[in-house]
Amino acid sequence: MSRVYNFSAGPAVLPEEVLKEVADEMMDYRGCGMSVMEMSHRSKMFDDIIKEAEKDLRELMHIPDNYKVLFLQGGASQQFAMIPMNLMKNRVADYIVTGQWAKKAWQEAQKYGKANKIASSEDKTFSYIPDCSDLPVSEDADYVYICENNTIYGTKYKELPNTKGKILVSDVSSCFLSEPIDVTKYGLVYGGVQKNIGPAGMVIAIIREDLITEDVLPGTPTMLTYKTHADAGSLYNTPNCFCIYVCGKVFKWLKKMGGLEAMKERNEKKAAILYDFLDQSEMFHGTVEKKDRSLMNVPFVTGDKELDAKFVKESQEAGFENLKGHRTVGGMRASIYNAMPMEGVEALVAFMKKFEEENR
Amino acid sequence: MSRVYNFSAGPAVLPEEVLKEVADEMMDYRGCGMSVMEMSHRSKMFDDIIKEAEKDLRELMHIPDNYKVLFLQGGASQQFAMIPMNLMKNRVADYIVTGQWAKKAWQEAQKYGKANKIASSEDKTFSYIPDCSDLPVSEDADYVYICENNTIYGTKYKELPNTKGKILVSDVSSCFLSEPIDVTKYGLVYGGVQKNIGPAGMVIAIIREDLITEDVLPGTPTMLTYKTHADAGSLYNTPNCFCIYVCGKVFKWLKKMGGLEAMKERNEKKAAILYDFLDQSEMFHGTVEKKDRSLMNVPFVTGDKELDAKFVKESQEAGFENLKGHRTVGGMRASIYNAMPMEGVEALVAFMKKFEEENR
Repeated sequence: MSRVYNFSAGPAVLPEEVLKEVADEMMDYRGCGMSVMEMSHRSKMFDDIIKEAEKDLRELMHIPDNYKVLFLQGGASQQFAMIPMNLMKNRVADYIVTGQWAKKAWQEAQKYGKANKIASSEDKTFSYIPDCSDLPVSEDADYVYICENNTIYGTKYKELPNTKGKILVSDVSSCFLSEPIDVTKYGLVYGGVQKNIGPAGMVIAIIREDLITEDVLPGTPTMLTYKTHADAGSLYNTPNCFCIYVCGKVFKWLKKMGGLEAMKERNEKKAAILYDFLDQSEMFHGTVEKKDRSLMNVPFVTGDKELDAKFVKESQEAGFENLKGHRTVGGMRASIYNAMPMEGVEALVAFMKKFEEENR
Repeated sequence: MSRVYNFSAGPAVLPEEVLKEVADEMMDYRGCGMSVMEMSHRSKMFDDIIKEAEKDLRELMHIPDNYKVLFLQGGASQQFAMIPMNLMKNRVADYIVTGQWAKKAWQEAQKYGKANKIASSEDKTFSYIPDCSDLPVSEDADYVYICENNTIYGTKYKELPNTKGKILVSDVSSCFLSEPIDVTKYGLVYGGVQKNIGPAGMVIAIIREDLITEDVLPGTPTMLTYKTHADAGSLYNTPNCFCIYVCGKVFKWLKKMGGLEAMKERNEKKAAILYDFLDQSEMFHGTVEKKDRSLMNVPFVTGDKELDAKFVKESQEAGFENLKGHRTVGGMRASIYNAMPMEGVEALVAFMKKFEEENR
């Protein structure tokens, strides 16, 4: 077995010890004689798994009792519709568009009401986060929507927008559990798990109880109603059981690593290794405003497309996978989620230095 | 490692050799240095996995070229809304209600138009399939809907209903790939994979191309539009990659077993062992009309609740798991999907005989 350094933007690297445990338990989960994949979602065994996962997540994020934790299917893309269908009581919402995913969410919301774009950074290819301290928030807005970390562009909100009292809804898919957050600042905070937590096929939504109502837009499917899942403890129908199980193991791993405070420190150190190199390199440079840099996704370019392509090719041959940037940005992108070890980033920087020397 | 005989109705038993392969490939999928869970869904490696899975499924089911195969999230429960949202052009559809899942589908469809219940077997606790040779199919019905195998009640359509030229939509969750079907008889045939194919968290929908249109009901989410997924080869957003991978392995296993013709023969033999015993037992008896018996789900009772409970308890102690019947039917239920070995059913019958002798 030879593992590569996997810089994929998602699905992405998972902790090796988690994968080992999953492999070890595949034929027989803790003496029950079956795999978690074969287990009834109504069994005592699985009930323990889902309850323990929720408990550990609540501890990690300090989720208050008046918030529900929901394990849902369909990815963030399905939330783009589910959010307005459930929350757009006045049929008005404000969107801050800082990347492709926020834009898609904004476009989908237009099906359900007046979705206002109150700020955007599209003028500079989403390379920064706009000043959100005094935006023209709509008086009758049901919520203000953001995508907190922009996977493709490598930016992140360092401060949450001033929503002027309106509910904040945030997609944290690519920074989920990478650092502590104050859950009470959000009405709904959600993310796909396939970047920083587990295998693809699940979204975790953390939603304030008073926002969970039967009063949804006409025609909202039962499965797209938060109340359906909140009332049933995410077991209205068969959930993605295996994903919940793997995520639960990652929660345990995060607790063992010291929790989100420790992860933040570690992620800052890891990102600094790469950003410090980019800031002094004569060949490579970052593509976003320094103040808005993500700790998770680090896009960079040489400024020369052929050289970019050469780097991607040679890095892959050297065991660094998925460094090619998103097609809308070009160049390279290193996604360095929680499970990317420090040595992976150090090895990447060493390789970049060597490449720079050989190709200057 | 000691494996039990798992008679769960779903999630359910999977082929042991598939689980072994999955465990073996967990840290390093075929020399690529990562787990399938860590793989970008846009990578060449994953593209091979999803294409191969679709190809094998098409071969197994003889799916004609004018049908699309979609790998979707949200389970059958989400299809209950997705189907009317996409297919109810006249806002009229006919439902045949033969169990709880058909009933839920019918109820959900009422959100979107006139959903007529044109037949039902609820009068006798869904213990039979009504005569569907000459039903009052609505003239302007967009489709006729059935649930082909009723997991809870243990009945199955032995003949498809006469839809009088209307499109047939069928939920085959609990008989998926258990025997050959003629796909051309359906407009849409779909099922959750967590009973007969793989881990929970995915539905496979096989839909005739002319039914895939942009002309969906107003307010239909992008993610609940079949065209979104058909146009993107099930990669509009990140799918349940790991589930696709495991299902792909089960397709290979089915091909090795001789395909669906061989599975049918095997399933008939397996079910006969249990039904033949029930028909001659003085203690245990089946709960449904013989002509409508499912090959996959076999409910039975002793007629005495205390004895039922004793049987469930002692069978579990003897290594037979999940034999307790659904709460709406009571008694016992043995789900004997494709992956349940013949020996599992033989061992169960031997145990039942012994129990009958000891408790007569």
